[in-house]
Amino acid sequence: MPIKSRIRTVPDYPKKGIMFRDITTLIKDPVGFRLVIDNLTQHYLSNGVDFDVIVGIEARGFILGGALAYTLGKGFVPVRKPGKLPADVVQLEYELEYGTDKIEMHTDSLVEGQRVLLVDDLLATGGTALAAAGLVEKLGGVVAGMAFIVNLPDIGGEKKIREKGYDIYSLTEFEGD
Amino acid sequence: MPIKSRIRTVPDYPKKGIMFRDITTLIKDPVGFRLVIDNLTQHYLSNGVDFDVIVGIEARGFILGGALAYTLGKGFVPVRKPGKLPADVVQLEYELEYGTDKIEMHTDSLVEGQRVLLVDDLLATGGTALAAAGLVEKLGGVVAGMAFIVNLPDIGGEKKIREKGYDIYSLTEFEGD
Repeated sequence: MPIKSRIRTVPDYPKKGIMFRDITTLIKDPVGFRLVIDNLTQHYLSNGVDFDVIVGIEARGFILGGALAYTLGKGFVPVRKPGKLPADVVQLEYELEYGTDKIEMHTDSLVEGQRVLLVDDLLATGGTALAAAGLVEKLGGVVAGMAFIVNLPDIGGEKKIREKGYDIYSLTEFEGD
Repeated sequence: MPIKSRIRTVPDYPKKGIMFRDITTLIKDPVGFRLVIDNLTQHYLSNGVDFDVIVGIEARGFILGGALAYTLGKGFVPVRKPGKLPADVVQLEYELEYGTDKIEMHTDSLVEGQRVLLVDDLLATGGTALAAAGLVEKLGGVVAGMAFIVNLPDIGGEKKIREKGYDIYSLTEFEGD
């Protein structure tokens, strides 16, 4: 059973009309979880994208990012919602469909010039991923690539991210979302 | 440099008088992260605690739990704050020092009799860990053990958890907290 068929679709979550792509059914199974991590690991061992550290986006990005940091022999740095990181932080506010949201990183989480792989479970509008990239760059880091399990290309995030010149890799796509 | 000396202490966070033990400085370094995951992996490969799945507690438990699920060849199941899981959930309310908190798991995240290793970064009062254990048991799972990076034994969580008969393993302790 491939990765895509292990992902559960929950209709009308978090609101009417949204088809939520739920990776928990994929990763609760040891074979599913290994498929995901081995595939991402193989990709980044062989594709020439060079980086020093994994930056995982709260919260599902932590699950994948933690495993991937281990398999690739990198450190792990979290991007978190406001108020969750205990030391000095830099913050970035970004626009949502309605209103705004904020994310934070520790000021000392990256060193100047450090190359980063951003990791999250799903790419939809790309808003959070681009905000995380902006935070990394504010800290002097370089975004070497972005990795996702699921890409929803029809929502437009992939296009927006590619236009800005970032490298993207995802394991599966759902169209028409 | 051992694990303990890589952990940053942030005084008076999240409130006055609390010495916050911050693992982000430990895990942002590839050697620190590998020390943590290899130590936990070796422990659970050799200590006879047998389990089928890793249950990680939001959010720092996801980072460790994801890596450990990979190294030990298990699946990963999240315990989350309310409103974060898209499908049917079971919820458990538990007491904090002031007020209460709630955590949730997907109803179908475990099967009857499945053995679980609970993972989080830090053990203080044990409130969240015991609540997570309660949720696992509500779903018919069996708590085979609990793993933490940091134990703060003077706060009393370890004692409370051991009195209930659960197996605990942690990598380092801070006393007098």
